[in-house]
Amino acid sequence: MLKKDEIRRAVRQAIDDVRRTNPMAPSITNTVTINLVANVQLAIGGSAAMVYMPDEGEAISAAGGATYINMGTILSIYTETLARTARALHKMKKPWVLDPVGIGLGSIRMNALKDFKDFPPSIVRGNASEIIALANLWGLETNVDDAGVRGVDSTDTVESARRAAVSLARFIGGAVAVSGATDLVTDGAAVVTVSGGSKFMPMITGAGCSLGGAMAIYACCATPFIAALTSTMMFDFAGRAAEDSDATHGPGSFQVNFLDELYRAGAAEVADMNISVEEAER
Amino acid sequence: MLKKDEIRRAVRQAIDDVRRTNPMAPSITNTVTINLVANVQLAIGGSAAMVYMPDEGEAISAAGGATYINMGTILSIYTETLARTARALHKMKKPWVLDPVGIGLGSIRMNALKDFKDFPPSIVRGNASEIIALANLWGLETNVDDAGVRGVDSTDTVESARRAAVSLARFIGGAVAVSGATDLVTDGAAVVTVSGGSKFMPMITGAGCSLGGAMAIYACCATPFIAALTSTMMFDFAGRAAEDSDATHGPGSFQVNFLDELYRAGAAEVADMNISVEEAER
Amino acid sequence: MLKKDEIRRAVRQAIDDVRRTNPMAPSITNTVTINLVANVQLAIGGSAAMVYMPDEGEAISAAGGATYINMGTILSIYTETLARTARALHKMKKPWVLDPVGIGLGSIRMNALKDFKDFPPSIVRGNASEIIALANLWGLETNVDDAGVRGVDSTDTVESARRAAVSLARFIGGAVAVSGATDLVTDGAAVVTVSGGSKFMPMITGAGCSLGGAMAIYACCATPFIAALTSTMMFDFAGRAAEDSDATHGPGSFQVNFLDELYRAGAAEVADMNISVEEAER
Repeated sequence: MLKKDEIRRAVRQAIDDVRRTNPMAPSITNTVTINLVANVQLAIGGSAAMVYMPDEGEAISAAGGATYINMGTILSIYTETLARTARALHKMKKPWVLDPVGIGLGSIRMNALKDFKDFPPSIVRGNASEIIALANLWGLETNVDDAGVRGVDSTDTVESARRAAVSLARFIGGAVAVSGATDLVTDGAAVVTVSGGSKFMPMITGAGCSLGGAMAIYACCATPFIAALTSTMMFDFAGRAAEDSDATHGPGSFQVNFLDELYRAGAAEVADMNISVEEAER
Repeated sequence: MLKKDEIRRAVRQAIDDVRRTNPMAPSITNTVTINLVANVQLAIGGSAAMVYMPDEGEAISAAGGATYINMGTILSIYTETLARTARALHKMKKPWVLDPVGIGLGSIRMNALKDFKDFPPSIVRGNASEIIALANLWGLETNVDDAGVRGVDSTDTVESARRAAVSLARFIGGAVAVSGATDLVTDGAAVVTVSGGSKFMPMITGAGCSLGGAMAIYACCATPFIAALTSTMMFDFAGRAAEDSDATHGPGSFQVNFLDELYRAGAAEVADMNISVEEAER
Repeated sequence: MLKKDEIRRAVRQAIDDVRRTNPMAPSITNTVTINLVANVQLAIGGSAAMVYMPDEGEAISAAGGATYINMGTILSIYTETLARTARALHKMKKPWVLDPVGIGLGSIRMNALKDFKDFPPSIVRGNASEIIALANLWGLETNVDDAGVRGVDSTDTVESARRAAVSLARFIGGAVAVSGATDLVTDGAAVVTVSGGSKFMPMITGAGCSLGGAMAIYACCATPFIAALTSTMMFDFAGRAAEDSDATHGPGSFQVNFLDELYRAGAAEVADMNISVEEAER
């Protein structure tokens, strides 16, 4: 298990490396927040490219450093695109981030999520209800039933998803990030919790989606665990800074200032945020 | 017919109820303005979820309080999605809002709009040309021919669509809202007109679409008539406030400040706006 | 070849004509930046309408003054939509703008781009790598191999694409615009270079896409060459002004202020920007 100061060093390194190398992370993501995902990826120093077609999913994943798959809106062609892209990523041993938003809804999404068990992502990001639902779908230990997802909203607390997150992280051999008032990131060994963000985060669409997109950018330069944590800390830092800005008067100006703060955030300041590191229970 | 002070009370109640209960209104909506629709729905206190697939349209409509269907961009799968979702809503007797944007264009859109006559929405929102065209398509009395829609723009005045709006509202047993320089909302008995908004409204894409999305949120907590009117008054109020803001210098800053003003608007102030209430002609 | 003062007069005229006549330019464009494309088209005084279906592509192109086709995200239906729309535009002799973003990726995009050789656009806009790749795909003289496109980013300099741009412009009998630190616009006879813009341009998604969308708006009122140049100069002017604004602190506020500056920019000031006009080599 990484020590707190090792974690801070790695987070700082990830932020700097992305800004220095401008890595490209392609996405298959929903049409609601696709623009914000791309703008966040650019604001933190990365490059974005979004596709829908199966051959494009395979080809762009080969060209990118890490891929982001967000299930928010499903198109008919996804029966083919998602399976082929996940398979290609698995074969290439390239990292990818899964955001299982909308889990429980629709046959294409559910079939794809089931299939991903055989070609697992390096990072899973979701709210508490989504993480619990995915762990249950894959038959992992969660100690809790699906509370049910309401549209794209969580009805569970982050803490109630701790067991599911740890089980998922161990199963995929990567990292899991649970978003909420306090955020939790685990690689199955360590459980890190971070606070921050803003009351406006749930009042803009795509805060979660773009957090996942940022994880894919950091995963081009860092381990899944550090990528998930760096993105989470960066969002908590920039969200707090944007809410505190004199120019923020509501969700509209918050989103604008949030993008600015992602761009301006000092790597050292983000890495030095208050975090709690615990050992995951066996 | 509701009296003016009853209307004001109900509008204020709708604004407060949405902010208190955070109702979820799913949408099938166009990809151009889908992000603004969701952000407006969140800014007024609601929750958003967007889908394209037929089984998802049915399932999410069952989970939501009211559904928004906007025809702005058509996908191939919509031949199935729109019909199945409208049918499901009809069977569940759940309210839904139709925005017939693009009426006249393309066979999938036109077939769906024709079919909706048998599974009618609770609220229709559009510009004058769209409302006239839909009433004519359904063979209702309008006293005016289609002037033709230019892309997504109106070539008719709001007043010229009064007869069509009243006919449509009576036919669907709900409410119709016609957007323009002065906005008109009718339930077939009363005709309310409201002024406000901003010269910048037609210079941002999605002012109309997000108005319809807000109607679906308010329709989770209020009658179709009050939902349509509350949304219209809220937009006229926040649009005026955003234009008057010192921070607004053009359409870019207007959109940002508009979202802020939707979030900040006092329920009482919106409900007390200047409105005109007339009895609809027989 | 137009003289510099004739060019300035024509640019000023194009800006004024668009603001006076509010021309409608439909688009088939990617879902990542579709909202920004529409908002830019509205901010400069035009009207936007976006479609995906084949019959809608044909019908809306007939209704619009010029059409914008951007290949950023491909849908299955595009096998039919792109070919039928390009054919219809060719038959109607209506101007259209092609943005071959993503060239090299996926069979649908590549087949469509090959087919466009027989129904060529009036304007091609892209970064240097995209312009070189399209000219090579069509077997035109470029003096340089494809350096390869990285996702949506260029790995070539604008100057290295000069030959390809001139060849392409001559082949299509229209204009080609190459975007970069210095922008280049040619009609095959004259080569105009303009500087300006902002370091933030590559940090927001859709700067290039919306530049192409603006070209389609200006092409409703001006020749392809003047439309491509007006749009380029307008972007360089507004980008510089937005970066210089006291209200710009990062990519989020830059995008907001950029839209404001497009709306506010004086036609005479834009037309009087520093440009260089050279004769293209034979």
